[in-house]
Amino acid sequence: MKDLKNIIIAAPDEKIGELVKQQWLTFDPSHGLGDLEKMVVKYAALTGKKPVEKLKTAMLLMCGDHGIAKYGVSAFPPEVTIQMINGYIGGSAGANVMARHANADIFITDVGVNADLTDLSQVINCKVAMGTEDFTHGQAMTREQAVEAINAGMKVANDCIDQGYNLLATAEMGIGNTTSTAAMASAILDLPPELTVGRGSGINDERMAIKRGVVAAGLKINAPDPNDALDVLCKVGGYDHAGLAGMILAGAQRGIPSMVDGVNATAAALIAYGINPACADYMFCSHLSEEISHGKMLEMLNLHPIVDAGMRLGEGTGASLAIVILQMALDVYNQADLKGAYDA
Amino acid sequence: MKDLKNIIIAAPDEKIGELVKQQWLTFDPSHGLGDLEKMVVKYAALTGKKPVEKLKTAMLLMCGDHGIAKYGVSAFPPEVTIQMINGYIGGSAGANVMARHANADIFITDVGVNADLTDLSQVINCKVAMGTEDFTHGQAMTREQAVEAINAGMKVANDCIDQGYNLLATAEMGIGNTTSTAAMASAILDLPPELTVGRGSGINDERMAIKRGVVAAGLKINAPDPNDALDVLCKVGGYDHAGLAGMILAGAQRGIPSMVDGVNATAAALIAYGINPACADYMFCSHLSEEISHGKMLEMLNLHPIVDAGMRLGEGTGASLAIVILQMALDVYNQADLKGAYDA
Repeated sequence: MKDLKNIIIAAPDEKIGELVKQQWLTFDPSHGLGDLEKMVVKYAALTGKKPVEKLKTAMLLMCGDHGIAKYGVSAFPPEVTIQMINGYIGGSAGANVMARHANADIFITDVGVNADLTDLSQVINCKVAMGTEDFTHGQAMTREQAVEAINAGMKVANDCIDQGYNLLATAEMGIGNTTSTAAMASAILDLPPELTVGRGSGINDERMAIKRGVVAAGLKINAPDPNDALDVLCKVGGYDHAGLAGMILAGAQRGIPSMVDGVNATAAALIAYGINPACADYMFCSHLSEEISHGKMLEMLNLHPIVDAGMRLGEGTGASLAIVILQMALDVYNQADLKGAYDA
Repeated sequence: MKDLKNIIIAAPDEKIGELVKQQWLTFDPSHGLGDLEKMVVKYAALTGKKPVEKLKTAMLLMCGDHGIAKYGVSAFPPEVTIQMINGYIGGSAGANVMARHANADIFITDVGVNADLTDLSQVINCKVAMGTEDFTHGQAMTREQAVEAINAGMKVANDCIDQGYNLLATAEMGIGNTTSTAAMASAILDLPPELTVGRGSGINDERMAIKRGVVAAGLKINAPDPNDALDVLCKVGGYDHAGLAGMILAGAQRGIPSMVDGVNATAAALIAYGINPACADYMFCSHLSEEISHGKMLEMLNLHPIVDAGMRLGEGTGASLAIVILQMALDVYNQADLKGAYDA
């Protein structure tokens, strides 16, 4: 078991960031493109070199089932996790369509799906367990399993970086994961379930009451320590979250930023942040989810969403939108010249 | 002079909108993609048919100079209008780069630039005057000139629609135009200059004071009638605004929606709305500008931005971002199947 304390993350290279900022001024002297400039400057500072012309994104779709899904916290039964994985393999899900537009390759990774997927050659097998335990009766996973899942995420991310991907993006699938996310948000932000549990898959009031009850029960029996990210993760988190936390940490270690999608991804980002706060610099924020806890979690990470489209699908869909915007910003940097872009 | 009272705008086709909504449910049963679904449904209802696979956008870049620019209300001198037009022709401005990414063709249109551009074959000549008059000493243009400029915008838009473009987008260039926009916003929303004048081109406090003074003076001497859009336009508006208002009206008349960019475009949209309120249905909102009056103007049009990136460049740049998002939404509609896109 690799020790997570050995992750060394360098500070962003402010010098190259400043250089890019000066170059940007030659074609946008009044900073009229706002966050687009900031994204390119940040990308340069994180990667430590002149911004690339074309993003090639590895979108790690971490899959894991959740023990608490059996309570009906989602509009969909747990079996839908597998159905969705088959959809991703076929390339036919909305998430596939949007990832293609963003020039992102999806790496479907089994970190803890409750089914044997070893015959699916398109799925990277990092299975730690057949889903988490029911966290209303004890912790979701052991601390060792949490670390194993994080290391699995790091391994997949490192393999992608070795292949030349210059951006990572989060995606996840696991029926019940917004319940786990709400529990983690409650634990870390010290908020009651009423302020962290959202409609997730579009659930009705009855399921909302169940979902809040499940989160409350999980927090009560496990009493996760908000100052110990691994404790929060193993007590009420998911394998999908763990894998994404590992991805973000590995990216930061290698100087490759992560585009963080929605509410589940942001809970994973908070875990990564708890393990090594320096990784927060390496996160790009995509969109503001409609889930109620998202804005509060982003605040803790000092992240600002650029898209606000009432989305709450997850699966990397918001990340794909923001990747396209980052690509457009890079295009401006690489293609515009100083004749352009004054404003009035 | 064509009578603007004869513009007939049909209501959106709610029937085809409802059909597309039902189809969307087959792959996104919980409405997890939020505004993306709404955009596709709206596009279908406005065009009255199954949504296209590929957007082909005519971005009408309306150019006009502003008499009040001589007071130094912008960080740039009036001559920059011409410099920017040359930049657009060369394809090297940030706005060009972003439009290319959005598959939008830019049509540079001279509605009132203070220079003879007839030797520039890439510029569509619809010149009504050599810029507006200084509106601190009387009205910016006559009512007849305003109508002529609106008709010019309608003509260019109609020509583009005849060529097969399936989306229109606003863009504008004219040093001083955010001052004119602030004056129109003050008139229409009944707000003092302190609540409508923004930093525009990134001006300092000294220029801000001048800009507010110019707006106040223009409102005082002209007393534009907030219930008469043409009165507001001809007293404190610009030829760039007028051209865009015409474009939006022509699009609505032909069932082709307009992607509205930033604060100047939204002022033009308010003028179009004042002339024929039915055209508001045909507007897509792109981003929230950093200019302070923008949110208030959007409220009046009941429009909701999907991008919030601190931009205030105009020139269609925010529209390009949103066009790409609309294209991604159309891709999801046209390519995703019912195996995809559950959420958890």
